[in-house]
Amino acid sequence: MRTFFYAHRRAVLAALLTSAAGAITLSRFPALAQGDPLPSWNDGKAKQSILDFVAAVTREGSPDFVPAPQRVATFDNDGTLWVEQPMYTQLAFALDRVKAMAPLHPEWKDNQPFKAVLEGDMKTLAESGERGLAELVMISHSGMTTAEFERIVKDWISTARHPRFKRPYTELVYQPMLEVLAYLRANGFKTFIVSGGGVEFMRPWSEQIYGVPPEQVVGSSIKTRFQMRQGIPELFRLPEVNFVDDGAGKPVGINEHIGRRPIAAFGNSDGDLQMLQWATKTGGRRFGLIVHHTDGEREYAYDRESHVGRLDKALDAAALNDWTVVSMKDDWKRIFAFN
Amino acid sequence: MRTFFYAHRRAVLAALLTSAAGAITLSRFPALAQGDPLPSWNDGKAKQSILDFVAAVTREGSPDFVPAPQRVATFDNDGTLWVEQPMYTQLAFALDRVKAMAPLHPEWKDNQPFKAVLEGDMKTLAESGERGLAELVMISHSGMTTAEFERIVKDWISTARHPRFKRPYTELVYQPMLEVLAYLRANGFKTFIVSGGGVEFMRPWSEQIYGVPPEQVVGSSIKTRFQMRQGIPELFRLPEVNFVDDGAGKPVGINEHIGRRPIAAFGNSDGDLQMLQWATKTGGRRFGLIVHHTDGEREYAYDRESHVGRLDKALDAAALNDWTVVSMKDDWKRIFAFN
Repeated sequence: MRTFFYAHRRAVLAALLTSAAGAITLSRFPALAQGDPLPSWNDGKAKQSILDFVAAVTREGSPDFVPAPQRVATFDNDGTLWVEQPMYTQLAFALDRVKAMAPLHPEWKDNQPFKAVLEGDMKTLAESGERGLAELVMISHSGMTTAEFERIVKDWISTARHPRFKRPYTELVYQPMLEVLAYLRANGFKTFIVSGGGVEFMRPWSEQIYGVPPEQVVGSSIKTRFQMRQGIPELFRLPEVNFVDDGAGKPVGINEHIGRRPIAAFGNSDGDLQMLQWATKTGGRRFGLIVHHTDGEREYAYDRESHVGRLDKALDAAALNDWTVVSMKDDWKRIFAFN
Repeated sequence: MRTFFYAHRRAVLAALLTSAAGAITLSRFPALAQGDPLPSWNDGKAKQSILDFVAAVTREGSPDFVPAPQRVATFDNDGTLWVEQPMYTQLAFALDRVKAMAPLHPEWKDNQPFKAVLEGDMKTLAESGERGLAELVMISHSGMTTAEFERIVKDWISTARHPRFKRPYTELVYQPMLEVLAYLRANGFKTFIVSGGGVEFMRPWSEQIYGVPPEQVVGSSIKTRFQMRQGIPELFRLPEVNFVDDGAGKPVGINEHIGRRPIAAFGNSDGDLQMLQWATKTGGRRFGLIVHHTDGEREYAYDRESHVGRLDKALDAAALNDWTVVSMKDDWKRIFAFN
């Protein structure tokens, strides 16, 4: 299935969401373990590089010292903070949405690519190409208010299960990376998510799962339109791309939303290359990290040849730029909180 | 002059900037006065409404209680936090930029609207209309990297003087509003600027002047393009509108950047109407405030007929929606820190 989908990353990205408003539970982020702030990491070069960087930029009087307001760290989401195989979670969401909406669209059972989705015919779906996938995502992500979309995402994320792990997607977040997020925040960093995924798909749960509030989530988006409906102000989601936050779009999105250059960036694929360049190739001590998926047993193993989360140019760039490359198999004691 | 310009607010807005990166001084925001958190406000309904709202949403157990992460307050900038007469500061900047760039553009002395700017011919400039003003702003705000633009803004803002007050524009911020910003933050609010002005024109000084860090400034923007130039990553500013954060665009910008609905909003013109609706017309205790420019002696007096900062529909809406209307003349003990 993975080879069918996700040759179309850009089309899928060209999907993406937007919703807001609403009570999000205060993060109950686990306190740091006493002593070792990164207990799920094996000792080694990768772990040490994180500790060394944080020590250097936070020690007053150090030549590498960075004042707290400038300690901005950006994290890719898919494949960096949670599982992206066998398909981006957001596409799984889109396919489920199409199925849920089908009763209101009897015409879909005769029209591609909807017919293929409803029949579970992945081969035909893949043949619909970029245009077909983009249509699916647009249809499933627009046509409602931002508040309605937020409710839809929350309902889905609380019930959907990953096909291999049979668990909610929000449990498939990498425990070692949660520790890095918490460790950075404990050291005065502001942590941001900068994802090719839809911003409105992540915000409903990012605070609870990652400790990252909605205003620190940057992502792809579709356009919205303000309207007063019977005296009630609403934002209506339109089937039109607003911004694609991937590849060379990531520095653009970072600049637009954050307005500062990060001093640390974390990614896992070629879509993160420019973000890592933007964060690290400038004066002063900087930090770049790439999660390398090397553990087919506990998670997945893929890199240069993968259609989803391809890691090729960015892996070459890591060696040239002294970015930390994390081997999930060797550097992570455990992958998920549940194992 | 004011009647010449700023019939063209939208065109001017369609200007707007983008720059980032770089060390911004830690805010040295003045501590709150002991006892009275709003010492520059006269006692009265307006001041009391602010105190009552903050007390209600921060008192645990109150039916109006709002958890801290959801305490989002948004502030318009021009006319709400600083002077917008006789012309938006950003247009003064654009005109100065055209003059500074003129030696590199000898053709400008024969071409409108540049000729009019260089000759100080405001009448002809006004006749160039929306298109002419948009061209001026685009030309003066694009064609450089974001880092270069940030430097240009910083240089200008530190040397330019307001034509009437003969002081730097950053001294022409309203002391009573600075107190509101600080008071809200002291009560667990996150304060955001949401301005029709260019985001990259405000970020270089917003932290120092308002205590609002770059990542909490939302504004209009032009497009940028990422590029590697001789191994250095840069964002290049293009002469193309990205987003106009005014009127019905403000709720869109708030949703896109903040991802939560504010519970309090502060504005001064019809360009803020939809932001106030978005913030206040929803369940729970909410707060809207409009700064009414009623003090021609200490500042300016204008509302329904003004070409810049017109306050007409929003003034009518204030009465219907129970928004606080501040009379600068009656409610503010002093306007600026220097008087």
